[in-house]
Amino acid sequence: MSSLVIVKMIKMTNLVVKKIDLEIEKPLAVINSKTLDELKIKHSARIKIKNESYELMCEVVSSSDLVPPNSVGLKGLDIESLHVIEGQKVNIFIRRRPASLEYVKNKRTGSVWNDSQIRTIVNDITVGNYTELEIAMFTLAQYYLGLNMDEITTLTKYMAESGTTLDFDEPVYDKHSIGGVPGNKVSLIIVPTVAAAGLLIPKTSSRAITSPSGTADTMEVLCDVNFSADEILEIAPKTRGMLVWGGTLDLSPLDEIVIHKVEQPLGIDPHSQMLASIFSKKLSTGVDYLVLDIPTGEGTKMPTREDAISYAQESTELGRRLGLQVEAALSFGEQPLGRAIGPALEAREALEVIQGKGPTSVFEKSVELTGILFEMAGLSPPGQGGALASDYVLKGKTQAKMEEIIGVQGGDPNVKPEDVVVGEYTVDVEAPKDGYIVKISNVAVKKIANAAGTPRHKEAGVYLHKKTGEFCKKGDKFMTIYSNSEGRLTEALNLAHNLKPFFHEGMILKRIASGPRVES
Amino acid sequence: MSSLVIVKMIKMTNLVVKKIDLEIEKPLAVINSKTLDELKIKHSARIKIKNESYELMCEVVSSSDLVPPNSVGLKGLDIESLHVIEGQKVNIFIRRRPASLEYVKNKRTGSVWNDSQIRTIVNDITVGNYTELEIAMFTLAQYYLGLNMDEITTLTKYMAESGTTLDFDEPVYDKHSIGGVPGNKVSLIIVPTVAAAGLLIPKTSSRAITSPSGTADTMEVLCDVNFSADEILEIAPKTRGMLVWGGTLDLSPLDEIVIHKVEQPLGIDPHSQMLASIFSKKLSTGVDYLVLDIPTGEGTKMPTREDAISYAQESTELGRRLGLQVEAALSFGEQPLGRAIGPALEAREALEVIQGKGPTSVFEKSVELTGILFEMAGLSPPGQGGALASDYVLKGKTQAKMEEIIGVQGGDPNVKPEDVVVGEYTVDVEAPKDGYIVKISNVAVKKIANAAGTPRHKEAGVYLHKKTGEFCKKGDKFMTIYSNSEGRLTEALNLAHNLKPFFHEGMILKRIASGPRVES
Repeated sequence: MSSLVIVKMIKMTNLVVKKIDLEIEKPLAVINSKTLDELKIKHSARIKIKNESYELMCEVVSSSDLVPPNSVGLKGLDIESLHVIEGQKVNIFIRRRPASLEYVKNKRTGSVWNDSQIRTIVNDITVGNYTELEIAMFTLAQYYLGLNMDEITTLTKYMAESGTTLDFDEPVYDKHSIGGVPGNKVSLIIVPTVAAAGLLIPKTSSRAITSPSGTADTMEVLCDVNFSADEILEIAPKTRGMLVWGGTLDLSPLDEIVIHKVEQPLGIDPHSQMLASIFSKKLSTGVDYLVLDIPTGEGTKMPTREDAISYAQESTELGRRLGLQVEAALSFGEQPLGRAIGPALEAREALEVIQGKGPTSVFEKSVELTGILFEMAGLSPPGQGGALASDYVLKGKTQAKMEEIIGVQGGDPNVKPEDVVVGEYTVDVEAPKDGYIVKISNVAVKKIANAAGTPRHKEAGVYLHKKTGEFCKKGDKFMTIYSNSEGRLTEALNLAHNLKPFFHEGMILKRIASGPRVES
Repeated sequence: MSSLVIVKMIKMTNLVVKKIDLEIEKPLAVINSKTLDELKIKHSARIKIKNESYELMCEVVSSSDLVPPNSVGLKGLDIESLHVIEGQKVNIFIRRRPASLEYVKNKRTGSVWNDSQIRTIVNDITVGNYTELEIAMFTLAQYYLGLNMDEITTLTKYMAESGTTLDFDEPVYDKHSIGGVPGNKVSLIIVPTVAAAGLLIPKTSSRAITSPSGTADTMEVLCDVNFSADEILEIAPKTRGMLVWGGTLDLSPLDEIVIHKVEQPLGIDPHSQMLASIFSKKLSTGVDYLVLDIPTGEGTKMPTREDAISYAQESTELGRRLGLQVEAALSFGEQPLGRAIGPALEAREALEVIQGKGPTSVFEKSVELTGILFEMAGLSPPGQGGALASDYVLKGKTQAKMEEIIGVQGGDPNVKPEDVVVGEYTVDVEAPKDGYIVKISNVAVKKIANAAGTPRHKEAGVYLHKKTGEFCKKGDKFMTIYSNSEGRLTEALNLAHNLKPFFHEGMILKRIASGPRVES
């Protein structure tokens, strides 16, 4: 039946580009209704617009007025991405429904994708041959049915190959966290420590999507994080370490498409795609040795120990198949890491830890993960990497290297923790009574920080004065909220009162009254 | 995690409606970028626009020029569906991600939807709370994972309840074909025959989507098929039969949404949704007795006998659970039914069959299916319904009733087969050599008819001079193609030459030469 709906990719005609004043995420092509009639294209159809080596899939919008006949109205961003200027002619093609969609459909009857099928699917999605719905069909096949390890391996490989790849002439080290825990600024300590030991660690990281701060957001408080592939290839071998944003590098483009078009709008994160996402970017950045941080426990992506162990096993197996040496480390993730949440507050705390003055939890997690890389590199005997890493921090080697990295990335190498600008408006949340803190909710802390302005406003965030296990007297400060807007500060405070992110031991969570007494 | 992305349904403000000159399928709300900034709404967000009891989910498009601040630009169709006029104020709400999406997601871990979950999902989709991607997530859960019979029953029930329902004070009879075979005009013979016997058969049917003609398209050649629910409730009990288009009646609105937004664009037809689609419409039109035609064989929706039997069993079971008496009939579907394909040609052939002059295959299928309804109604003993139905046709009772129905539906009751206007441009496709016809491809015939102009141009179509099993001499006419455009006729003829819809017995399908001889 599907053969009926296949439309051949036919070159239709040339149309003149006109800029239109519309802003929406997906590309739209506004075409005069007369021109559409002549070309026998219906509104809402999909066309591909080509200009030399650039192309763009657009949805057709018909208008009798907005654009003259024989023109195509495009919004500014789409004109840029096609590398055209107004008045220039572009080629219009009618989209052909990609044949690889049949492979996706065959998942329904238990089909296993082979190498060439996966290559075709990845290519079709990467070059824009899939509509949003079709990308959803691919992603939801993974979500509902899963992929086996062979499929994940192949998918990972082609996802990496379809984007930029960085080739270094020596072994590359890396640390990756699957995320989910606010305040996880350990990369800012790990990277300079690993680099200080002479190992190459050109770390690419992401910006926050729903969390208060991604590693790239935090690092950007101290210096630039936008570097091209060529710049990274030139700088990293000299400094041995960098902390850059991966977003501009076009690493694993399929992953960006799937995240943006399907995973985020639907709020899903299919297991196989999550693995392929992480490892495709490791492959494309040339990583050989990887320590993988898997925060575990209630409120994390891996609520149970079993989930985390199974994920660790799959990750190490996937690494093995792809030629990476991977060691996974399960970490406690049931409360935020350290005390600072939000880009500026986290950058400040990371600098403190590097000076040996920050919270123990951040210090220990950082040196333990670094230690694993040291052991993989043979720099220390098994079980002693953490101590060696600790030495690097305490003897100032980490700090010296961090100053060098900040400098080479265009920041002030002499920046001190107290130089970091945080939100000018602050408010304290106090304990309503005496008690031990038995729990701090990751989700609640994230929401409060986001209400205060993170990740967009780097100065916003939350500072936790008390952590789980600590005693808190009535009137003691639980947390301070930072913002650069009074309005947002108030919103965040209201949220803190509603969400009650802290749990007191002995606190009554709910009172349930008995019904009226029944005479027996 | 999902709780993070839930946005409360907040009434934002009033905006003034302005008509914009854009045509695209999905509703767009063009809002001035300043207004969006003030409301903290991003472009591409989803908003709900409300006007009294009408509401519409729209995707936000930002523009600095097209609409003034504090206005919302809507296209003509959307303004109509909201029942507003330009200059009127409407309420803007930010969409809340529907909680029922969690039920959909839980399918992934094997969850079975309960009654209240299905009710909520159906309601949310029906009122427009789901985005296209979310509707895809619901549909693909069915496609990839399937539903059990309890779930299908409940889904069917709520799909019916969420739209228009027709209540007659007496038993209602119906015939339904799952489709897939071109030329299946039997409803035009069955309905008047059943009605002539005094049984009530107010048949709603569909228009063609990818096929050359739907029953509503064929009937529309002879008379009007657009009637309101009130008109049907008034007319049908008098004439005992009608043949109307179901599209305007808002029967099972979820089904229309799913077909339109997901099934058609992706080219899928999930089993459970197909069952729920058919039976929800039977429920909402008050059907008590149903004969279900299941065309079977290569090139149909049920390629194997096992598929068809399993589908028949599920259908009768679903009917039983919903209080309908259903009898399924497997029919031979490996070639078009009768000789005429296309609305006008099919209407003409149906009139011929009603006069006892049409092809045997159409006559026999019609009276056999009618006979099953006669037996269900107790009008004839088991096994003798077909003979009784045959009598109705041959004695002119079917014709008299058809004339009455055509008349009451606004057509010419005295219309003769030869009065039906068919395409003025025709071309014959001839046999290249002598031989028996062993196969006629449904798909190829559909494509040729569609190229000639069906279903949009009612006069277009294909007439088959030879059917499977018949002998054909070189130069004999295989088929005649009809069109009302010379260009489309040529396209259809070229397609006929390429697709070769007929297979000759003894015909060499492919010649494969050996490689050069290898000396041993």
